[in-house]
Amino acid sequence: MACITIFNPSPTAVPLHHSRGNPKMSLPSTDPLTTAGRFLWGRSLPPQPLITAVRTTWSTVWHLMMRQLAPSSSTGSYSRPAGSFPSIDLALYPPTASLHLYAALSCPWAHRTLIVRAIKSLEPFLPVSIAAPGPDGPWEFPSSSVHAGDLVPGPDRANGRRTLRDVYGMRRGGYDGRSTVPMLWDVDKRDVACNESYEIIKFLNSWQRNADNNDIDLYPSQLQKEIEEWNRIIYPSVNNGVYRCGFAQSQEAYDEAVNALFDTLDTLESHLGTNRYLCGDVLTLADVCLFTTLIRFDLVYYVLFKCTKKKLVEYPNLHSYTRDIYQIPKVAETCNFEAIMDGYFRTLFPLNPGGIRPALPSACKPDVLSKPHGRDSVCSNANNSKLLGHILHQCYNSSRPDEEYVNNEHEEEQCEHTCLMT
Amino acid sequence: MACITIFNPSPTAVPLHHSRGNPKMSLPSTDPLTTAGRFLWGRSLPPQPLITAVRTTWSTVWHLMMRQLAPSSSTGSYSRPAGSFPSIDLALYPPTASLHLYAALSCPWAHRTLIVRAIKSLEPFLPVSIAAPGPDGPWEFPSSSVHAGDLVPGPDRANGRRTLRDVYGMRRGGYDGRSTVPMLWDVDKRDVACNESYEIIKFLNSWQRNADNNDIDLYPSQLQKEIEEWNRIIYPSVNNGVYRCGFAQSQEAYDEAVNALFDTLDTLESHLGTNRYLCGDVLTLADVCLFTTLIRFDLVYYVLFKCTKKKLVEYPNLHSYTRDIYQIPKVAETCNFEAIMDGYFRTLFPLNPGGIRPALPSACKPDVLSKPHGRDSVCSNANNSKLLGHILHQCYNSSRPDEEYVNNEHEEEQCEHTCLMT
Repeated sequence: MACITIFNPSPTAVPLHHSRGNPKMSLPSTDPLTTAGRFLWGRSLPPQPLITAVRTTWSTVWHLMMRQLAPSSSTGSYSRPAGSFPSIDLALYPPTASLHLYAALSCPWAHRTLIVRAIKSLEPFLPVSIAAPGPDGPWEFPSSSVHAGDLVPGPDRANGRRTLRDVYGMRRGGYDGRSTVPMLWDVDKRDVACNESYEIIKFLNSWQRNADNNDIDLYPSQLQKEIEEWNRIIYPSVNNGVYRCGFAQSQEAYDEAVNALFDTLDTLESHLGTNRYLCGDVLTLADVCLFTTLIRFDLVYYVLFKCTKKKLVEYPNLHSYTRDIYQIPKVAETCNFEAIMDGYFRTLFPLNPGGIRPALPSACKPDVLSKPHGRDSVCSNANNSKLLGHILHQCYNSSRPDEEYVNNEHEEEQCEHTCLMT
Repeated sequence: MACITIFNPSPTAVPLHHSRGNPKMSLPSTDPLTTAGRFLWGRSLPPQPLITAVRTTWSTVWHLMMRQLAPSSSTGSYSRPAGSFPSIDLALYPPTASLHLYAALSCPWAHRTLIVRAIKSLEPFLPVSIAAPGPDGPWEFPSSSVHAGDLVPGPDRANGRRTLRDVYGMRRGGYDGRSTVPMLWDVDKRDVACNESYEIIKFLNSWQRNADNNDIDLYPSQLQKEIEEWNRIIYPSVNNGVYRCGFAQSQEAYDEAVNALFDTLDTLESHLGTNRYLCGDVLTLADVCLFTTLIRFDLVYYVLFKCTKKKLVEYPNLHSYTRDIYQIPKVAETCNFEAIMDGYFRTLFPLNPGGIRPALPSACKPDVLSKPHGRDSVCSNANNSKLLGHILHQCYNSSRPDEEYVNNEHEEEQCEHTCLMT
C-alpha cells in the first residue's frame, strides 16, 4: 500500500519489531536546555514530578499576578477598582473654559470620549493627546512620532510631560492613585477636571461650544431615564462583563460572568431586530457606550477574555448595528485595530504569556465593517419604554443578582494601562 | 443632570477639588499579598521595575517550558517530534489476529481510528481502551468509572495497566519513547503493532474481518493517489498547522503558520462548494483526517491556538461538510466535546495558565451540528483530479515552501498526553 512520506517514518528507520532501546531522533532544537533534558529523560517528556512542580508554580504565579493586578472577590470574580473622582460640575466649565483630553486608542472607556468629541465636532475646542502603552509602566506619550493627525499616539500637547502619571502628578497636593484614561484636564486650573468616562461624555454632550454639530443631542432629556436603564443593564454584564470573563480567577466566577454576558447579548440582539438604536430611532450615549465594547469583541474579547459562546459576527443584528455606528462620519477614524490588539495582547501578559498577537479576524477588516448595514429600514418599536421595562424585569430576575449593582457602585470606567487595566 | 449610581462615585466621596493624598478605596480582597502591596505602593499598580521583572520572568519561563515540551526550530516554529515506528505490515495481521486499540477522546489523531472503527463496524473485532489525561503525566486508565459504553475513559481492557506508559513498557526490550495514542496493540505478541494514526486507519480499512460494513472502502485504489495528495496539502497546514499556530514561539512563526492554515481552509471552502467530499462523491480517509481537526476548530483551536481569522462556522461549505460527516451513523458518538475541551484547556497549562475552560461555542452544540447539512445536493466536479492538480500547483507555489515537506517527513501523527502533545 503506497503512502506519501510525510505520513510515514523514514524508510531507513529501524523496523518496530527490531527496535530496542532508544532509537535516534532528530530534534530540531539543540539548545543547552534541550540537550540537558535529552540527557536526563531521553526522548520522553520530562518526568511527572517535574511537570507537576512546574505546573503548580506556573499556576500559583498566575494567581498571584492576577490577584495583585486585577482585584478579585473571595470567589475569584473580578472587581474593578473604585474610582475616586466625582462627577463633573458643568457650571464650573463655561463655554470659554480651556480643556484638554487625554485618551488612548486601545481603551474602550477612552474610546467613548473620542467618539463623542468626533460626533459633536468638538475637535477645534478640545485638543487631545493620545498616550500609548509604555514598557510595563504607565501610559506614555511617544515623543518621536511624526505628526500624523490627532488620533495617533504622540507628545503631550497640553503639558509636555512624558507619562500620564506625570500629568496626574501636577495636581496640587500630588496624586498617588491610578493614572487612568480618559482624563479631562483643566488647563487653566492645572488640575484634573474629571476622569470618569461616562461623566466626561455627558459633559461633552452638554458643553456649549459653537461646534458644527452642537445641535446633536446624544442625551436628550426625554430619553435620559431610558439611557440610564440601558446602561444599568449593559455596564455590568457587557462593558465590564467582558473583563469579568477575562479576569476571572476561578471557573465559577468565569461561568457566571460569561453566562450574564451572553444573556444580555441575546437580549440586545432581539431588541435590535426592531430598533435601529437602543432607544429607538436616535443614537444616544447608550449606543456609544455599547459600541466601544462591541467593536473590540471579535478582535480581542472573544479570544483573550474567552467570550466564546458566539462571535459578534454570529449575531446579525448586533453586527449590523455595530457597522451602522462604525459608518457614522469620523467614527471609523477613532477605531485603530492595530493599537487595540497591541494594547491587549502585548500588554496583558498574564493572560497571554507568549505575547503573540493573533491574526486580525476577517470580520473585523475595515472593508467588512464598511459593508451596507441596512439598519435604515429597521422600524423602531413604538412601545419602546414598555419593552425596555420588560427586558429590565427579565434581567433583574434571571442571571444577575441585585447585589452586583450595589458592589459596582464605585467602579471606575477608565483605563490604567500598565499590566491589566487596559 | 441625573445619573445612576453605577456610573458615579459615591455621593459621600471626597469631591475632586478637595481631595488630597490617598482617598479610601474598598478593595474587595484583603489577603496578605494585597495588603502588603497596598502598604508598599498604595492604590496604584506595583512599581514599573517590579512589573518589568515579573513580566520578564514570566515570559522566560514560558519560553523555557515551550522549548522543552513543544520542540521548535531556531525561528520559533513548532516541529512535531519524529516518530519511531514504521508502517504496519498487513500480512502480519490476518483476519484471525487479536488486536486491541488504545485511544483517547481529546486527541485528533486517535479520533481518526475511532471513526474508521465505527464506520467499518469493527467494534466486535477490535476492543478499545480509552485513556484520560492524568495529572501532569502520561495517559491513564481510570479504574473507578462505571462502565458506560466503549467510548468513555475506563480501565485498560487488554492488559489491566494503570497508564499507557506501563503498556508501552511491556514491549520486549522496554521502551523509553513517547507513549502516544492511538496505539494498536498486538495481543498475541504482547507488542505494539503500530502507533501512527494514518497507518492504523489504512490498516483498519483493509483488515478483512466479517464486519457488517466490510464492503465500505475508504481508501479505494483508484483514489489513493488523490487521497495522498490531499493529505499532503492538509497535513502540514491544517492537521499539524493548528498546532504550529498554537505552539509557535515567535510572532514570525505564528504569522507563517496562521497564513498557511487559512490559505488552505480558503482553498478547501472553495473546493467543497462543488464537491461533497474531498475526492468527489465518496467519503475517504482524507475526509476522516480533515474532519477530526475541523470538529475541534471552533471548540479549541480558534481560541487556544489563536486560529483567529475565521471560525469554522464562518465557512458555509466547510461547516456543512463537517456536519455531514458528524451525522454519519456512529460518528457523533466518537465526538466528546467535554473531553476535548478538558483535554486541551486543562492540560496545556503553558498556553492557559489560569486553567479556565471557556464556554462551549453555540455553533458546537450537538443540535446545531445535527441540523440538515444539504450536502446531498452538491454536484461533484467531474474533472476532479484536474482540479486537484491545479490546487496542488497553487499550494506548492504560494504559501508553503517545498522544504516543509522534507522537514515533516518523520513527524508523528499521534498524541502523547502530559503537557503539550494532546
